[in-house]
This record gives sequence, structure tokens and C-alpha cells, in this order.
Amino acid sequence: MRVQKPKGTVDILPGESQNWEKVENITRSFLTRAGYREIRTPLFENYEVFSRSSGESSDIVEKEMYDFQDKGGRHIALRPEGTAGVVRAYVENKIYGPDHVKPFNVYYIAATFRYERPQAGRQREFHQIGIESFGSDNALSDVQTIMLGNDLLHELGVKNFELHINSLGNEEVRKAYHDALINYFTPLKDKLSEDSQRRLGTNPLRILDSKDERDKEFLPDAPKIIDYLDEDSKAKFDHITQMLKDLGIDYVIDDDLVRGLDYYTGVIFEFMVADSDLWASPTTVLGGGRYNHLVEEFDGPETPAVGFGIGEERLMLVLQKQNPDLFADHGIDFFLANIGEGTELKTIETARALRKQGYQVDFDVDQKKLKNQFKKADRLKASYVITIGARDLAEGVVQLKRLSDGKQIPVALEKLGHMADIIAEL
Amino acid sequence: MRVQKPKGTVDILPGESQNWEKVENITRSFLTRAGYREIRTPLFENYEVFSRSSGESSDIVEKEMYDFQDKGGRHIALRPEGTAGVVRAYVENKIYGPDHVKPFNVYYIAATFRYERPQAGRQREFHQIGIESFGSDNALSDVQTIMLGNDLLHELGVKNFELHINSLGNEEVRKAYHDALINYFTPLKDKLSEDSQRRLGTNPLRILDSKDERDKEFLPDAPKIIDYLDEDSKAKFDHITQMLKDLGIDYVIDDDLVRGLDYYTGVIFEFMVADSDLWASPTTVLGGGRYNHLVEEFDGPETPAVGFGIGEERLMLVLQKQNPDLFADHGIDFFLANIGEGTELKTIETARALRKQGYQVDFDVDQKKLKNQFKKADRLKASYVITIGARDLAEGVVQLKRLSDGKQIPVALEKLGHMADIIAEL
Repeated sequence: MRVQKPKGTVDILPGESQNWEKVENITRSFLTRAGYREIRTPLFENYEVFSRSSGESSDIVEKEMYDFQDKGGRHIALRPEGTAGVVRAYVENKIYGPDHVKPFNVYYIAATFRYERPQAGRQREFHQIGIESFGSDNALSDVQTIMLGNDLLHELGVKNFELHINSLGNEEVRKAYHDALINYFTPLKDKLSEDSQRRLGTNPLRILDSKDERDKEFLPDAPKIIDYLDEDSKAKFDHITQMLKDLGIDYVIDDDLVRGLDYYTGVIFEFMVADSDLWASPTTVLGGGRYNHLVEEFDGPETPAVGFGIGEERLMLVLQKQNPDLFADHGIDFFLANIGEGTELKTIETARALRKQGYQVDFDVDQKKLKNQFKKADRLKASYVITIGARDLAEGVVQLKRLSDGKQIPVALEKLGHMADIIAEL
Repeated sequence: MRVQKPKGTVDILPGESQNWEKVENITRSFLTRAGYREIRTPLFENYEVFSRSSGESSDIVEKEMYDFQDKGGRHIALRPEGTAGVVRAYVENKIYGPDHVKPFNVYYIAATFRYERPQAGRQREFHQIGIESFGSDNALSDVQTIMLGNDLLHELGVKNFELHINSLGNEEVRKAYHDALINYFTPLKDKLSEDSQRRLGTNPLRILDSKDERDKEFLPDAPKIIDYLDEDSKAKFDHITQMLKDLGIDYVIDDDLVRGLDYYTGVIFEFMVADSDLWASPTTVLGGGRYNHLVEEFDGPETPAVGFGIGEERLMLVLQKQNPDLFADHGIDFFLANIGEGTELKTIETARALRKQGYQVDFDVDQKKLKNQFKKADRLKASYVITIGARDLAEGVVQLKRLSDGKQIPVALEKLGHMADIIAEL
């Protein structure tokens, strides 16, 4: 029997891989211009990195972690998301120290993993793009993070998205809100889903995330965190929303938005795309928020932080639908066809010279008949074919043909080193 | 206690991550121009993928595989190298079919893993760059692969490297050579290292790879494969070396070169760098060869193939030493300093506008004193500082200063959208 790829994984093949590269190149360029630099943390971490950060009661830790025992008996997990490893690296490498400019702004493009029953759009190996900013608690830092999310989606060509924001406030706020939720849901306990009954004891906030119909009917009347915000949190939230308005970034305040992880402490946000061809209701492609205590959870100093993450698979799905031009295949620049004794060497030499000039160039390593070579040029969508024939070579020329209009001219061998000039005159 | 990264892994932090990006960007561009396209296979595969391909007697399978049982009881391994997963994907996705142009040329840039005692330069998580070409057995295909290795190293700025090549010939050749090695080593068995005594029974070819002093003294007199090559293999090897000569690519024929994996079947090669500051003897940075039976091992059709791999960590080490200019940090383009009531919004707006024009721009989200902001501009190695003051803003200008010579001019707000023109005139 043939060996197959593991359950829940995919191969990204040529034809599609260029699309991923394109999205990642745009993203890298965009974030670099904004002063964010890449960080690469290990694919796997000690299990504790994720159990500390995501909260023991999160779905990630409870059900989805791709963890195993290594040969040394260590409890290891393939990373389920990008933030925890970055925070671990921030503390372990003492980036909080004076050698590093603050805020410390980083991005990652990372393979991520979860172990669960694979289903549509839920792979065991998937990919995330994310940014994190460590060291500032200023509203400008929240605004910049949200603005970068907004502008990146625009730059990639995502359409019909809506920014939902909310604030979780400081620790006292969340404590008071936590109690209010327990008071509200406890009398309803028997009517809730099993998951939510359990959450009531561990993390009632997460009941608000529930997609279970049994829970959903009680959500509209549940207490709203906005009503529990302290003065400082409220003032900061107002400052953030005012700046977003001034920057022309539309948003809606969404009371039900709580995000799936325990570590958020201030503003939280999601960019949701409405596209009826893709899904029935608006769906999140980018989400994030402020998490001012996570560095301390990793025994680092008190460090405010804010960031966002993008699910790359979902982003690709949106872009394939909304901005297909981004993924147009323009083919190669030159195909070199050759025929006759002694043309083989000149062909590979010409390929080498043209590639050095920046062109995408291919030729037939199998040295089939000329007819086959021309067919190959078509399949590779070549813009030009250069035919290298034994008789032409003896006279010091090759034939250059533009496939769009069939125009053909002889080109002297010594001019092949200046192809841009030749094309400009064609 | 603080949570630490797993044994044998590293964090690639800003300051170093850009170097990796730079090397990978050059590599992607180079290979794309040569008609190679990216392939991304899963980080982990079923264990059998690697045991089939590398050979049960290889070091990878015997000692180094990072394998584990997943929660479903499957035997999974984090990939130890890039080729096997690509071959598995080639077969599983039926790329041998007529929908795909042949040869099928792909590259990968991949995290790879091995489980062994970490030591200098031997990490548990490391990285490989590789190319594979499926579908041609023509010498041109071997030559192009070797030429791409040579030209890529040149393009990256690697110096003092030497190409070693050898040929393993076809199956009959390897069988005859295999027997000759057994005949030669068997009388010497008691004097060999334990590893080589074992290899004598499993794969005597690999004794030639031994670094053990007990084995090394018997290597010079061991049979040479070149003496066992059949006419076809010899003619092909001569054709390859002749073309390399014609292309001006120097090489040495190296009888001891056998490569560490069982799957090679024809030409094999290594590019070795001599640099006494880095290591005592020339060390391989790029190696590869022809493997015409691996697709069949995966139950695909008979498919000739050739490729190479680069150890990215070692390449980075060489480049940091040999081409440090490649990694020069040029800093950001603009730092925006602001002071006074109402300048916050104009600052983030200006950052947004200049980033959109392609510049790398930062500002102080913490809104500290002007003196601190200027200090930050220096630490970020900004080429220009734009100072946005409340009084200037009232008059519709900001101040632009070039830090290299201190030259400063006022710039009208409406001109900030055309920064290239302003800089050209400065």
C-alpha cells in the first residue's frame, strides 16, 4: 500500500504554493515597513508553555493540544498558536532588558498544530501569521495594532470586512464581571450545554463564545462587560475608538466578543468577513487584543503587550475568492528551444546568463524534438521563445520570438548579455 | 522556575532573523528564475515515509529519528530531511500524470528534526533548503542541478568552496561494488569500529563515510567505485564532467564520496568550504545526487530524479564569516518625533502615509519626551527624523532632518504624500 500523508495535513503544491508565497511576501513587506521584525521560535515547546498561557480551561488545552512524550520522557507539544512561544522567548532571552528598544515589535509566520478530529477547514497542521508588541500600555499601541490589521487586510485585497471591538478591562473589572456571569448563569445551569455547565465552574466568560443552540438563547440577556468597565478602562477604550474614528477605520462595538483565550486583559478585536459565497455568517479572519499579564505568567517582569493573529488557511480562502488577480500565473519569461549538434551547451549557458539578468528561464533538459519543446514553452506560459539552432549558431545568432504577437528577430550571441535592451526594441 | 525552550532548539530573534530572511529571499528568487517552484509538505509524516526512503541502516533511521506515538497510536516522525516527504507527495498527488510538465522541478525551505544528543552545530530542530527534479535521466538534468548549486552559493557570496563529485552507477554496478567492499573489509573486520563491523553486514558502502580513526586507515586501499562503473554510467559521468568543464565549473573527482543515504543511484556531489577560521578541514555545505528508484520505493512509477540539499544553519555560519556585508543593518528610513497637544493623530497618520509609500517608519507609541524620542531614532538607526510640533502643525508644516549631515528643511503637510520628491531635492 502507498504511504500517505498523515491525517489532517495537506501538501501545498506548485500552482498553489506561489499564492502562499505572495501573501507572505506582501505581509512581510507591510510589517517590516511598520517596524516589526520577524521572530522564529521552535515548532514544539515544553507542554507547560501552552498550558500556562492559554489557560487550563481553554479548548486548546482541554481538547486540542498536539502533545506527546518525547524519547527522553518529556511532555512536548507542537505549538497550537504563535503567541505563547514568543512570550516564552521574550522572557528566556531577557528581551525586557535595556539592550532592546521598546516596544519590542515582532511578527511571525508559523506552522501551528492541533490534535482533533479533522473536519472542513480544521486541519491538524495549519498556519498563522501574527504580530506582538511588548512594552507599551499606551492607547496608541492598541490603535497601531488595530490599524495594522486593518491596513494589511486592505493591502492584501480582502473585501467586506467589519471590525468588531470590545474591552475586557483590568483585573478588578474582569473579576466583577466574572461574578456577574456566575450569578446570571447559575440559575440557568440545567438548561446549558454540558460544555457550558463545566465552564461555569472554570471560566464562565467562555460561555459567551458558545456556538451551542442551548446556550445561545441565554446570551442576549447576559451581563455586558462594558457596563462593568472602570473609569480608566472606559477612558482608554474611548480614546482608542476616537482615534480609530479619526483615522477613518470603521468599527462596531460588540458586547459578545470575548475571544477564546484567557489571557486578554484590555481591548480585544476581530475583523470579520461577510461573503455569502464563502460562509453563512460573517467569519473572523484576524483577531487579537491586549494581554498585559502573560509575560508575568512566564515569570518575566510586568510587561504590557498587544497583538493579533491571522489564520492563514482562512485568509487564503478569502483571497482566492475576493482577489483572484493576486494569484494570476504569469508564466516564465523565456523558454529556450534548441536543435542540432552542439547546441546543448549554448542552451544551458544562455539560460544561465538570462537568469543572472533576472529573468525566469527554462529549457528542455530531456532534449526532445523541437515540436515537443515548443509545446512545453506553451505549457509553461513563456512570454518569449529563443530558438538555438546549429546553423544559426554557426553564424553567431539565435532567434527571439515574442509569443503574444509572433514577432521574431535574430539576436547576435554577444547581445544576449543585454536582453532588456533587445526586448525594449522588439 | 522559568519555562525554557526545549533542549536542542533555538530562538531566532530580530537582529538575526533578517539574515535568514535575506538568504531565503535570495534563494527563492534564484530558484524561481531557474523554473523551480516551492513545495510545502507536512512537518511530520508517518514513520514509514522516512524508514523506506533513507534505508533502515542509515544513521537517520537507526539513531536520529525524532519519532513518537500520536494520541491515535500512530507512529509519527518529525521530518529528518526534506526529500522523502516530497517524494511521498509526488506519488500521492499523482504528479507523475500528464497534467504536470516534466521534469517536475521543486524547491523547499523546511524545518527538519532529529532526536539526538545536542552538540555544537547539531540541533534537534534545524533547517534545510533543497531542490528536486523528477522525470529526467538526461545528463543535462544532473548538470543543471550541480550548476544551480554552484551558482546559488556564488550568488549568496560563499567563498573558497570546492565541488567534489563521484558516481554510484546503476544497480548492477552498486551490487558488484558492494561485493568488492565485503571482500575487502571482511578480513579486516576485527580491526574496524563497532559501527563499521555492523555496517559490513547491512551496508558496507557506509563504512567509507566513517570518521572513526580505526576505520580510516583502511579506506585509501579500499576498492574504488569508479573502477566498477559500467560503460553507460561511465559515459554519462564523462558527459557530465565535460559539460561542467565547458561551463567553467571546477570540480574534483572524489572516490571516497558516497553520501550518507542509501537512495542515490548515479552522480553524487558535495560542495565543500575550506575556511580555517570556521573548521579544521573542508566541510560540506551543499550535497546531493541522482536517485532514480525512490519514487518506485513509494509505489510510484519508475521516475528518474536528482536534487540537492543545503544545511541552512551551516550556510548561515559561512555567510556570517565570509559575506558579512549581506547582513548589514541599514536601520529604518523615518522616525517621527512629535511634541505638543494634538500631534498624536498627525503622527500616526504620517507613519501610515509614508509606509504606504514604501518606507520603513516608526514613532513613539509611548509618547515620551522629545529627548527620548530622538534617542530612539538613533537606536533604530533612522536615516531621517520628521519632527511634528504643535506650533509647526498650526502653520501646516513639519520639520524633516537628514541624520547623516544634519540638514533640515520644513515640509508642507500636503507634500508628505510625495516623499520621494522631497528627499531627491534635499
